[in-house]
Parts: sequence; C-alpha cells; structure tokens
Amino acid sequence: MNLPSKSKNFSEWYQDVVIKAGLAEYSPVKGSMIIKPYGYAIWENIQKILDKEIKKQGVKNAYFPLLIPESFLSKEAEHFSGFVPEVAWVTYGGNKKLGERLAIRPTSETIMYEAFSRWINSYRDLPLKINQWCNILRWEMRTRLFLRTMEFLWQEGHTAHRTEKEAVEQTKNALNMYYDFIRNYLAIETIKGIKSENQKFAGALYTSTLEALMTDGKALQMGTSHNLGQNFAKAFNIKFLDSDRKFKYVWQTSWGVSTRLIGGLIMVHGDDKGLILPPEIAPIKVIIVPIPDKKDNKIFIKKAEELKLSLEQLDISSEIDTTTNTPGWKFNEWELKGVPVRIELGKNEIKNKKLRIARRDTGEKIDIKARNIKEIVKILDEIQQNLFKKSAKFIKNNIYSPESYEEFKSILEAKGGFLKVGWCGDLLCEDKIKEETMATIRCLAEDKVFSKCIRCGAKAKHIVYFAKAY
Amino acid sequence: MNLPSKSKNFSEWYQDVVIKAGLAEYSPVKGSMIIKPYGYAIWENIQKILDKEIKKQGVKNAYFPLLIPESFLSKEAEHFSGFVPEVAWVTYGGNKKLGERLAIRPTSETIMYEAFSRWINSYRDLPLKINQWCNILRWEMRTRLFLRTMEFLWQEGHTAHRTEKEAVEQTKNALNMYYDFIRNYLAIETIKGIKSENQKFAGALYTSTLEALMTDGKALQMGTSHNLGQNFAKAFNIKFLDSDRKFKYVWQTSWGVSTRLIGGLIMVHGDDKGLILPPEIAPIKVIIVPIPDKKDNKIFIKKAEELKLSLEQLDISSEIDTTTNTPGWKFNEWELKGVPVRIELGKNEIKNKKLRIARRDTGEKIDIKARNIKEIVKILDEIQQNLFKKSAKFIKNNIYSPESYEEFKSILEAKGGFLKVGWCGDLLCEDKIKEETMATIRCLAEDKVFSKCIRCGAKAKHIVYFAKAY
Repeated sequence: MNLPSKSKNFSEWYQDVVIKAGLAEYSPVKGSMIIKPYGYAIWENIQKILDKEIKKQGVKNAYFPLLIPESFLSKEAEHFSGFVPEVAWVTYGGNKKLGERLAIRPTSETIMYEAFSRWINSYRDLPLKINQWCNILRWEMRTRLFLRTMEFLWQEGHTAHRTEKEAVEQTKNALNMYYDFIRNYLAIETIKGIKSENQKFAGALYTSTLEALMTDGKALQMGTSHNLGQNFAKAFNIKFLDSDRKFKYVWQTSWGVSTRLIGGLIMVHGDDKGLILPPEIAPIKVIIVPIPDKKDNKIFIKKAEELKLSLEQLDISSEIDTTTNTPGWKFNEWELKGVPVRIELGKNEIKNKKLRIARRDTGEKIDIKARNIKEIVKILDEIQQNLFKKSAKFIKNNIYSPESYEEFKSILEAKGGFLKVGWCGDLLCEDKIKEETMATIRCLAEDKVFSKCIRCGAKAKHIVYFAKAY
Repeated sequence: MNLPSKSKNFSEWYQDVVIKAGLAEYSPVKGSMIIKPYGYAIWENIQKILDKEIKKQGVKNAYFPLLIPESFLSKEAEHFSGFVPEVAWVTYGGNKKLGERLAIRPTSETIMYEAFSRWINSYRDLPLKINQWCNILRWEMRTRLFLRTMEFLWQEGHTAHRTEKEAVEQTKNALNMYYDFIRNYLAIETIKGIKSENQKFAGALYTSTLEALMTDGKALQMGTSHNLGQNFAKAFNIKFLDSDRKFKYVWQTSWGVSTRLIGGLIMVHGDDKGLILPPEIAPIKVIIVPIPDKKDNKIFIKKAEELKLSLEQLDISSEIDTTTNTPGWKFNEWELKGVPVRIELGKNEIKNKKLRIARRDTGEKIDIKARNIKEIVKILDEIQQNLFKKSAKFIKNNIYSPESYEEFKSILEAKGGFLKVGWCGDLLCEDKIKEETMATIRCLAEDKVFSKCIRCGAKAKHIVYFAKAY
C-alpha cells in the first residue's frame, strides 16, 4: 500500500494515488479510463453544486446529439482546423458505409449553433442560455488519468446575446462562477486571465482561463470561458430581428469544466499518505472506525451507527468501517482515500463518552465530548479553510519575476511555478520559449506594461504568466 | 397552435405535442434528436428520483468508456449477433485508420464485465453493484422522438452475485423498483412479466419487462431487467474464490430505463390540448398567470411573486407567466405544456383574497382562500392519483381474452390492447402471428395454463400477452 514520495516522484505518486484510492483506472481501450465509484462520487458532487450555480445564471440544461456531421464541424474554419486532428470518425452505421462521416463531438458548438439559428428569431428570444452535461471525445493516446484521456466528462455552457457587452459580461460571469466554485468547494486558488492568441479556443475571439499550480510546479488549466464574438453566428447564420427592425448577428459565449478538475484536486491537496479531500467536495466527510476489544463487537457497531445518525442530522455524510482489518490498516486505507475526518471509537471513548477525532490535513488528534458532536462541523470548516490557505499560499510563493532569460530558465528548471514576465507579443518568441523551456503562456496578466520581452528584449506588449503545464 | 385530435390521429398528435410543447425536436443528424430544456427537465427529475432508489439498493454509480473494441463486443456470441446490426463503428481516430474498429456502446455489458473480471477475486467482493447514467447509440433511421432514436439517454445497472438465487432476487428487485417508480411518479400502470425467448435481451438467461398501454392501443416497453445467468461470466471469465476454496463463476443481472419513459408519459396522459404531466414528475407544478387590468401591472406581478414564494415554502415549483400575451393565449400555452395546476390572479382574486385554481387533468376550476394555499398540496396529490387511476383503468379495460384467432385479429384491428391468450411455445407460431397481425408477445403471464394456442390450437405452454408495440 506504500506510495512513492509526492515530492520526489510526483508523477508516479499521482498515478498510484488515483489507482490505489479507487478513483479511476486505465481501461483496456487505449486512451480511455474507467471512473470508479469513489472517483465518480466526487464528480457527482461537482455536478450537484455547479449545476445549481449554472441554473442561478438563468441557464437551462438540454441535450444535443453525440455525432456531428463533418459538414457542420467544418463551417467555422478556425474551429475545424483546431479540432480535426483530435476527432474520432464514425464511418459505418449498422453495417452500411455512411455517405458523410460523423464526428464524435470534441465540443458541441457546431451541433448546438445549427439549432440556435432556428431557435432565435427576435431580440425577445435573447439571451439564450443552454448548458449540457455530457461525454466528450478527443483522440489522445498519451493518457494520464483525469488529466488527459480520449474521453472525458464535462459541462459546456453556450449562450447567445443581443449585444457585445452582454457577451463580454457572460464570459466573465461564467469564469467567476468557476473561480468561486474552485475556491470555495475544491479549496484551490487559481490565477485568472486571458489566453494568448496561440492558446485560445479554436474559433473564439478570446479565451479566459483559470490556472492552478500543482505542487510539482506545473500549471493546470481548471476551466475556460470563451467569448466567441460573432464568429459562429456568421458561420451558422444566427440572426435576430432587433427592436430597430434590423437583422443582426448574435454575440456568443461558451464555457466548460471537466473531470480534469478531479486531477487538480488530487495533485494540489494530496500528500505521501494519499488523497486529502476538502470536506465540501468529499463523498465521505467522516469515517467512523470502531476499535472493538476482542470480546464484544456489537456495542461498538451500535455506537458507531448512533454516531452516523447524529452526523446525518448535521448533514455530514459518514461511513462506518465494519471490516475485520486491524485499526492500523483501516487508518491507512481511509487516509489514502483522503476522508477529511476520522472518528475512532474504542473502549475508552465509549466508557468516557468522548470521541477521538483525527484530522486528515494536519494529522492532529482532538478529543471532544460525545455530546458536543456539533464541533465536527467546525473542524470540517477549519480543514476546508486550511486547505484553501495552503493552496493560496503555495501559488503566491511560486510566482517569480526573473529579470533575464537565463534566470527564467533556471527558475523553471529548479522550481517550476508561474514566471511573470514581459512578452513582446510575437508568436515566434512564444513558440521559441516553448521549444527551449517547455513553458507556455498560461495567461496574460492585467498589470500595466513597462518591461521588456524576457526572451528578445524588445518592448513588451503584455505581462504574462509562463509555466510548464499539464 | 391547434393540435390534431389524439383519438383520431394519434401519431401526428404525438409528434406535434412533443415539438410544440418544446420537449424535443428532430436534429439534422439523421436518426438523432435534440432534447430541449423542457423535455430535459423531465429527464432530470426522473434521474433525481430514480438515482436515489438505485442507491438505496446498494448500487454505486461509475463511468465506463463510450468506445468498445470489436473483440470485446464479440466475446459473448448471442450478444454480438443481437447487437451488431445496430452498431456505429469508429474506424478513424485523429486522421489515422484504426487497427481494430471501435463500437459506440449499444449497451455496456462487455466493457464493464472485462473490468468486473479484474475487480472480483473473492466472495468478499460480492455482490458488486454498479450503475451508469450515459448515452447509448443504436443505429436507427426510422426516428420517433423519445421512442426510437439513434442516440438516447439511459441508466444501466449491472450486478454480479455469489449465487443464482441472489441474481434472481436482484432481477426482481430492479424490476419492482421500476414498477414502483413508474406507478408512483409517472402515474402509469404497467404489466409485469417475462419476455419470450424471441424477445429477450441478447445474451440473457431471461428478460423481465414492464409493459404499458398507450391510448392508441399499442404497448410500450417501459423498462427491462435481465437475469444474465453465467453467460457473460463465462465469456469474460469472471470467477471468484468461494469460502469452500473453489473458484466459481458469478451470477449476473443488468437492467435499464431510458428517455423512452418520457414518450410513454406523453402518450398515456396527454389530451387534445397537449401534455398532462403528473405533478410528481412535472418540472413546473404550478403556473401563475397574472391577469392585470389595463391600468396597473405591478400589483399583479407583486402578488404573483408572493404566491411563488409561498409555494416554494411548500416545496412546490412554480413559474409566473409575465409575458404580455392575452390570458387565453397563456392558458393554451400552459395547457399544451401540461402544467398540472394553473392559478389565475385577476383583479377579483386580489380584491377578495382568493385564488382561482384550474386543474389540467379535469379542467375543473376551484376557488380557494389565498390563506389556504396548503390546499394546493392536496389538489396536486389528487391530480397524481387521478392520472394513475385512469391509466390503471385503461389497461384493465383493454386486456382481452379472444377465443379464436379470428376474434384475436378483429380485436387487435378494432381496439388494440393486450390480448391474453394461450401460446404453444413454438417460435414459428409467434413469428407467424407477428407476420399476420403485427402483434408480438409482450410478456408471459403467470397464470396457470389450461387453454390452447390461439393460432395453431395445440396445447398451450404459456398464457401470454400479445400486443402491437412501439
């Protein structure tokens, strides 16, 4: 059950935690993964919370077809050329060769916007805000569980607006919704910003992003929100009759987060013992471990069940470990699975009407009186806060401002992190930096620009965050 | 906005209701449909309720890959030959031709059971109970919205057990869960039974089914639960070490319901004005229609909002129609959408502190005092009961026991319904009846058999329900 050291062998540690904690596993279908019940339960929690937030923005869920005709996918040229290398094609249906091949959706702009062009006629039909929870397929053979797989699950929001201003607002609102969700539930701090042209969504005007920092110094894109401008509106002829009796193209946005978030959750919070799940997203918030003495087992199970019921009344999900494993084995197992709080129920605890509580994040042990069970709410809250603070501190401590390209490269090599530097705005410089250091522009900073390009020394056009990324 | 008559032109009525009520529409991708927000909201309610019931049975959700290698699909011979005519094949991925073609899942037995064979080692790993909510693709060009589409959404439960008895139990429990759900939430009565060999799931030992009756006299299969015996266990080598130190094959079940349920809901309850949704499954239980006099609009909206809040406290979802359409237009619109209760808020109602309530199922209008808002709970409950009673009565009144094949055919022609008759058990007779009358065996009845085969006159082996079906 021993894991590799997280600090020494991050990549092996990650894969081992995912598999041993029972979150997911490689499927014999190359490029694909199986999301196991414990991993899927985290996704269900993400869905439950985020779905409410999405609906609060006036967005409605719907479902569009999985298969997209090539003629649809190719309507917006930039979009098509961006996605075509990643598409899986259906060419046979029920033993017959198809006249036109069908793409398994790599994203749903094109299939949705054909419908939008029929649904939208007047300014009264706007804004139109649709979301869908579904599976997505992008051809990919270098699999990393949750982070990079051929198929993944996500949510994709798509909106159409009357004015450019509204679309700009919606792009922001979606990103802020993700930012708050990732912060408040996943306990992860992120950097917000706009992507460089090179890194934007194929077909968008611009892409805004949230970038988190993993403890190995590499960035992970957690969610994106795209302002599509009128690019797709023109390709799909999505026009409305405005109140001035003129036909106009709509302004659009799209935005999404995926099962990738679970990868971030693991990498940011985990330690050498395994996962550490923030209570707000943990499928099991409290694990109750009865430690019976040899003679009588029943009283311990009974007490554990009473405790489970009391926790339920406080809206705290818990489970009882009723296996016959040794206490040590049980402790390890639930630490591996990252359950935020463990309650040990031994002879002493029952006799003295107390509960022994172990925090997963700090390892701290706390004794409380059994009747003060409400304190667990507070403890869970402290764990949540503590994990977020750690994440925020880590990101803050790992933003560097190198003054030379040499320093840039040596920081990147030694520590990774976000390198906040000037950039001339030239694609060539961006590409060269990637080639030479593997770092990409994660996003543009909003800072005013006084400095020079970190690589070529020309006048900088933007301050940007460079990082190696997943 | 006028609909065709349900009794006179059922098929056109159905399609018109689905489209005009905004439930779904045909997609330009042949064979596929777009589930629109109002239709998807019904599916979300189905998911929410059923997911809880599934979890109560100790089943855990997970997610398995969309794409299944041909070599997996073909491992269980009967299964493969049953599904291969309906499979969509991926042959190209990211511009490269694949060595082995991949099926888009027409059902997930084979991809799941490969994993089961790795997950199950000891009797301690049993029972294993997994469910997945996902999309399914079966090649199909004769589309009928919700009833028959290339892609649909469903849930598929898959379990593995130590004993045959447990698998038999689980097959029953899943079917009973569906039966109760369809009865209590969708307000639809069904007939329970076992499928004939001809109609069973490809690869199963036997299939149990729930068959509802649409008002045009045709049956609709609402859900199935399969006892797979050890067929897949042998094909996928799913063995466990039992407590007697012997390796044994597991016993398996699988069961599912799909977005097809929504089709049944529409056909069973709807009338010439449109949908009638049972309150327990309706996305909007109450529509509030303010009827302002010309002078002042605000007071009506304010009262409507107060009412909405009061309903929320009673856990009743409602919406306010704030459009500027005429009351008559609004009434038609919400009747079309099948909202169970309408509350009219006119000058009189406000002045006299009362609410005028219109029941969608009976058309009845009831005045209640505004402070007695709780009565709406009772009214919604009455609507739910009334719809179920109607459905139960309809099915009961449409089970016929013809004494000759001539009578069989003439009843089928004139009224449809379930024809409960003796059957010799011969596939040939079953096929001939289908050929001659379009009726298929929906399921076997549990009645003791004394009669003769309705077609050939030989000694009957089973009493069965014949019907034309969707």
